[in-house]
Amino acid sequence: MPRRWIPNVLTVINLFAGLVAILLSFVQQWELAVALIFGAALFDSLDGRIARRLNVTSEFGKQLDSLADLVSFGVAPATITYLLVFAHSGWNGYVLAAIFPVCGALRLARFNISSVKGYYIGLPITVAGPILACSAFFAQTMSVTVQALILLILSGLMISTVKVPKM
Amino acid sequence: MPRRWIPNVLTVINLFAGLVAILLSFVQQWELAVALIFGAALFDSLDGRIARRLNVTSEFGKQLDSLADLVSFGVAPATITYLLVFAHSGWNGYVLAAIFPVCGALRLARFNISSVKGYYIGLPITVAGPILACSAFFAQTMSVTVQALILLILSGLMISTVKVPKM
Repeated sequence: MPRRWIPNVLTVINLFAGLVAILLSFVQQWELAVALIFGAALFDSLDGRIARRLNVTSEFGKQLDSLADLVSFGVAPATITYLLVFAHSGWNGYVLAAIFPVCGALRLARFNISSVKGYYIGLPITVAGPILACSAFFAQTMSVTVQALILLILSGLMISTVKVPKM
Repeated sequence: MPRRWIPNVLTVINLFAGLVAILLSFVQQWELAVALIFGAALFDSLDGRIARRLNVTSEFGKQLDSLADLVSFGVAPATITYLLVFAHSGWNGYVLAAIFPVCGALRLARFNISSVKGYYIGLPITVAGPILACSAFFAQTMSVTVQALILLILSGLMISTVKVPKM
């Protein structure tokens, strides 16, 4: 396998994990679905680093990374949260669950065209997604209102202009 | 609302429709889910045209469009196909369903960095997605093998270098 493909293979594994997390939540395999989101986060943290280490960073890789991130840290956590928390909230539930990945997509689109170095503008979806999935999974006893507030705060932080230092 | 926001609002409606299609497939609302994918396709066909007509095309809009397309025409059709066709195929089902959006993401990433005019390279996900959703919905009596072949052919066409004329 050419060396320049390695980071993209890691990104595809991230996307694949996110997709399976979505499908597993249909059969209420919550533990595995949440674990796969964290697995996706692990591969997401590796692809960029390895690309830089191997000196094979590419615009293609950056684009693929954002597409994978929207699925693994936007759609998958929103699906899990919808099914665990908002499934009985009618159309309010659909709207609430959809707000999170919509804000994630807006943030990723802004990130893709920005050239700011040293910090992120707005909470990264790679942080917000795992927090949302954990909040839905570990705090199912919290009221729907509190869970909705957590989702809305995370969504707002993603599209905000808050400066978040890079780790 | 500033004029330059109008295309992006249409793209957000496309994404929102795709997200609700995913959530509706969890409650087996197949007709509405497939209809929403076609609704997403309608808004997707409008955003670019309106951006050009209003002379407000932007790199942000292009990025947001690809992110929305992956969800509405990649993840949503794959979810519907998984639930209708591959749900009893064990891990083969997860892998098959995931191949389609993975190929869609590879195609979108390639599209985002290309500057080819006049035609598309590879079948657009905006065409492949609605075909896959219809194939799963209208041809549920077809064997799992035939459905898997349709999915694999569409996935292959997306990442191929076939020239597809722009409509």
